[in-house]
Amino acid sequence: DVSVVDSKSSHLTHTFPGFINVAAFVPGVAQLGSTDLAELSKAAVSAGFSTSIVLPIGVGNAIHDRATLELAAANVQGHSYTNYAFSVAATDINLQALDEELQADTKALFIPFKLDGIDTPLSVVAAHLASWPLDKPIVTNAKGQQLASMLLLASLNGRGVHVTDVRDNDDLLLISLSKAKQLKVTCDVSIYSLFFTKEQFPSSAHVPTAKEQSALWRHLDVVDAFSVGPAPYYLAEEMGQKPTPACGIEETLPLLLTAVTTGRLTLEDIRTRLHDNPVLIFGLPDQSQTHVEIVLGRRAPFTNVSTCWTPLENNLVNGFVHRVVFHGQTAYLDGAVSSPPLGKDISSASVSHGPA
Amino acid sequence: DVSVVDSKSSHLTHTFPGFINVAAFVPGVAQLGSTDLAELSKAAVSAGFSTSIVLPIGVGNAIHDRATLELAAANVQGHSYTNYAFSVAATDINLQALDEELQADTKALFIPFKLDGIDTPLSVVAAHLASWPLDKPIVTNAKGQQLASMLLLASLNGRGVHVTDVRDNDDLLLISLSKAKQLKVTCDVSIYSLFFTKEQFPSSAHVPTAKEQSALWRHLDVVDAFSVGPAPYYLAEEMGQKPTPACGIEETLPLLLTAVTTGRLTLEDIRTRLHDNPVLIFGLPDQSQTHVEIVLGRRAPFTNVSTCWTPLENNLVNGFVHRVVFHGQTAYLDGAVSSPPLGKDISSASVSHGPA
Ligand SMILES: [Zn+2]
Ligand SMILES: [Zn+2]
Ligand SMILES: [Zn+2]
Ligand SMILES: [Zn+2]
Ligand SMILES: [Zn+2]
Ligand SMILES: [Zn+2]
Ligand SMILES: [Zn+2]
Ligand SMILES: [Zn+2]
Repeated sequence: DVSVVDSKSSHLTHTFPGFINVAAFVPGVAQLGSTDLAELSKAAVSAGFSTSIVLPIGVGNAIHDRATLELAAANVQGHSYTNYAFSVAATDINLQALDEELQADTKALFIPFKLDGIDTPLSVVAAHLASWPLDKPIVTNAKGQQLASMLLLASLNGRGVHVTDVRDNDDLLLISLSKAKQLKVTCDVSIYSLFFTKEQFPSSAHVPTAKEQSALWRHLDVVDAFSVGPAPYYLAEEMGQKPTPACGIEETLPLLLTAVTTGRLTLEDIRTRLHDNPVLIFGLPDQSQTHVEIVLGRRAPFTNVSTCWTPLENNLVNGFVHRVVFHGQTAYLDGAVSSPPLGKDISSASVSHGPA
Repeated sequence: DVSVVDSKSSHLTHTFPGFINVAAFVPGVAQLGSTDLAELSKAAVSAGFSTSIVLPIGVGNAIHDRATLELAAANVQGHSYTNYAFSVAATDINLQALDEELQADTKALFIPFKLDGIDTPLSVVAAHLASWPLDKPIVTNAKGQQLASMLLLASLNGRGVHVTDVRDNDDLLLISLSKAKQLKVTCDVSIYSLFFTKEQFPSSAHVPTAKEQSALWRHLDVVDAFSVGPAPYYLAEEMGQKPTPACGIEETLPLLLTAVTTGRLTLEDIRTRLHDNPVLIFGLPDQSQTHVEIVLGRRAPFTNVSTCWTPLENNLVNGFVHRVVFHGQTAYLDGAVSSPPLGKDISSASVSHGPA
């Protein structure tokens, strides 16, 4: 890391490694002909991300077998500005379909809180947890009773689990107690959960209450990663706006860096939660000659490359992405994407970085 | 065990060891001057029980510290027809009060689902679970999310837990999966849960639905013990009747033995769940010269010694307790209690019967 203070203007520049979005939400992920992931990747590279770990559940479609995985891969091949990795969703009928080949071709198993609007049955969760390989990640957005059950099953099976989009204080407490007893559990919170509340957006079911939010900040030591997740997409929709795959991605650094200027976060907090820990949790290959240059402490209105309603409209922010270098090429500079889509599918690439 | 078929009348007599009620519900357990446990014990000995493990939570009162324990003990001293053991309830403020002496003087820690009507906070559950001695039982009536959390914490702390009054299928599944992975979890179901349903008693919150009930029967192999518990007391109240400490106790054998005559249970099922397993789970000293003689297969109206509304009113049952021998004396014979109250406090008596 290199931090430089500009003597003329008293703002700071800093260089990060390329960021990992551990929960990239792609509405049409398994829809024939969807360009959603390509669109997302353009916003992602503009936001400083060099890798997106794709959630397998879109809006009314999901990656849950060989065919849907291949469809998702075909949709984006040659059109992504960042590297990307697919996961596969656990369903009540696909236990057998997740054979060794499919396990090898995906980054993780995603066990969703709900299947088609109803809680995923405990028996389904248990079966998938017992059969997915120990050395490949399992990700879940389980909450409450389901999360407690999943952590119990993970403990009983001696395996790890990554919990995405944690919002509730008790959920965080269970994760914290599990970590204290060496259970291999990790978690992320959605960046929107740290900065927007239900009090601000009463019609939203995708942001926490102010009380929940303050618990998240209080227990940030338990939080391994920051994610984008589905919250920005659904918040835009809940606000009566047309949501897009790019929603919320470019808000990432302006929000987090502004929190650095107010002393709530450090640059190290950002690096560990958007790069170091995601690399370890998901066994990602390190990307050489890939980095992000940011500017901190220059107050300016939030602006973005992509099209989506933003809760930061007309807000002043105190930090932004200046330049993104991807594989030695300038991929983004001061508001414009400046290289062709060179991102690759790294679903099956896996590197052990040793004990987390 | 001795089973004898009476050649003249084609019914069977059988001798069991004295039964253990692992969840004796005493409404006034910690109320000054209460005779509830004495009253319960008279019904208990008539029902074939030689030991009652007392739930520390009554109606608006609880054993939760030294003073309430002593009060409960004084209430019953010299007046119990069976042996009895007290547990102490975990509360949000008594973690420190449960010192080594109190631990030694109680049979178990009871972590209640609810404290004063609200869910026991996870942080309270976690603190008690981490500090109660590993070699003394913890009992809980937790359900759902709370049960999953407790089993997780038990797993993380490498300790056992006994779950009383299991009703829900997912709860049973979690317990079953935990047992399969050698977690030291045991459970009991209330006898009323096996025989009465919400369909029969729509106003009751203390009996399962027919669907839940059939799941309990289907997974009886996971059930370590049968209990009386609070269900009969609250069912009587829900039926607009005056409940007493004796409610539901004498129904135990008539219900279970009738299920033997229809092939749903064996005599061995009853013995393991009302004697063998309770002895192991609670480390109880074995009682010599204590046994229960029952008669099976003689159809007769249900009758009882004690005063309480019964759902078996005017029902024919196919089995009953004939004689109870307690410490070598006939304590009960054909409808009448026939010895003085010789029961002792065995709260601090503990015997290790080896691995369960
Ligand atoms: Zn500058
Ligand atoms: Zn499907
Ligand atoms: Zn790296
Ligand atoms: Zn550079
Ligand atoms: Zn006879
Ligand atoms: Zn109290
Ligand atoms: Zn015995
Ligand atoms: Zn005898």
